[in-house]
Amino acid sequence: MMRTPLRRIAVFLTIVYAAALVAALRAQQPASDGPRYANGTNLMRPADYREWIYLSSGMGMTYKDGAAGSTTFSNAFVNPSSYRAFMQTGQWPDKTIFVLEFRNSDSEKFINRSGRFQTELSGVEAEVKDARFPDGWAYFQFKSGAASAAPLAGSTVTECIDCHTKNTAVEHTFVQFYPTLLDVARAKKTLKPGFR
Amino acid sequence: MMRTPLRRIAVFLTIVYAAALVAALRAQQPASDGPRYANGTNLMRPADYREWIYLSSGMGMTYKDGAAGSTTFSNAFVNPSSYRAFMQTGQWPDKTIFVLEFRNSDSEKFINRSGRFQTELSGVEAEVKDARFPDGWAYFQFKSGAASAAPLAGSTVTECIDCHTKNTAVEHTFVQFYPTLLDVARAKKTLKPGFR
Repeated sequence: MMRTPLRRIAVFLTIVYAAALVAALRAQQPASDGPRYANGTNLMRPADYREWIYLSSGMGMTYKDGAAGSTTFSNAFVNPSSYRAFMQTGQWPDKTIFVLEFRNSDSEKFINRSGRFQTELSGVEAEVKDARFPDGWAYFQFKSGAASAAPLAGSTVTECIDCHTKNTAVEHTFVQFYPTLLDVARAKKTLKPGFR
Repeated sequence: MMRTPLRRIAVFLTIVYAAALVAALRAQQPASDGPRYANGTNLMRPADYREWIYLSSGMGMTYKDGAAGSTTFSNAFVNPSSYRAFMQTGQWPDKTIFVLEFRNSDSEKFINRSGRFQTELSGVEAEVKDARFPDGWAYFQFKSGAASAAPLAGSTVTECIDCHTKNTAVEHTFVQFYPTLLDVARAKKTLKPGFR
């Protein structure tokens, strides 16, 4: 084998540029934005869900007959990579995480004269699609200040699963309340057969 | 100059890797997410504002005494790079664009029993901070289906400017209605002196 200075330069340049290329491409890859767990199934509370994709808000929404109306807002967010997948397919990929944030509201304060605006955080819940759970979905409520939450279990989760199975527009998700996604699900024909 | 095969390989590899590196680094740079104009000052309606950073929502908010309450939701979004600057400084950089989206709402439909959820789009407005405008700020209302809008002028914009000057918490923006940003402005001490 020849050992000329030029050969050494070629080898050196190859290594330098290849390393730079790998580093640049790696920096380009966003860190995974899906669910993260402690102890296998305890969901870590996402620190940055307010920077995810906003789905929609409701005010005082209840699914139960006779429940008193409230002035609590609910804001729904989804992790960006799963949103991009949904926009392409109308379906949620494994490792999708939805955050439902609850906020108190106020009125007739500052320049506001009527209607309501959001104030303090009053609760954070999550729904996750992840094959690590028996039926592929799990539900979480974060206690105030808690860094993680165990999946809901017992009669509470039975109710969640029952309602998210029977009454949702796409898979186990209330896409009927997310107007921009509802249009996508219609176009991609991924609304559940029973959904009107 | 020597013209050996190895020299040619070194030159070839340098060009290939350098080109790949430049392409990778360029792909990493997000495209500018600030305001885009037709004819200098007509704001192009941002196609992707629903993927920007969500600030907050209100329902039926009015700033005028005696106005009838409505069931219209308003959702506020800001371009991501300006949001990141605000989180660092509590101030808005030049080329910040806010979109205020209005949506109708419905109730007692699907599984919903009380409270309200958002439905069809009913209006899109924008506020821009851009040194190209005389006082550095401009206001826009997009007509249904319009690709761009001229800056509001005349008595309409006088009212906008007057209210956004006197009643806003940070610069010309209603940060008092964006609870996560209000905390940042407090921490960075960028609330306007007159704001309580």
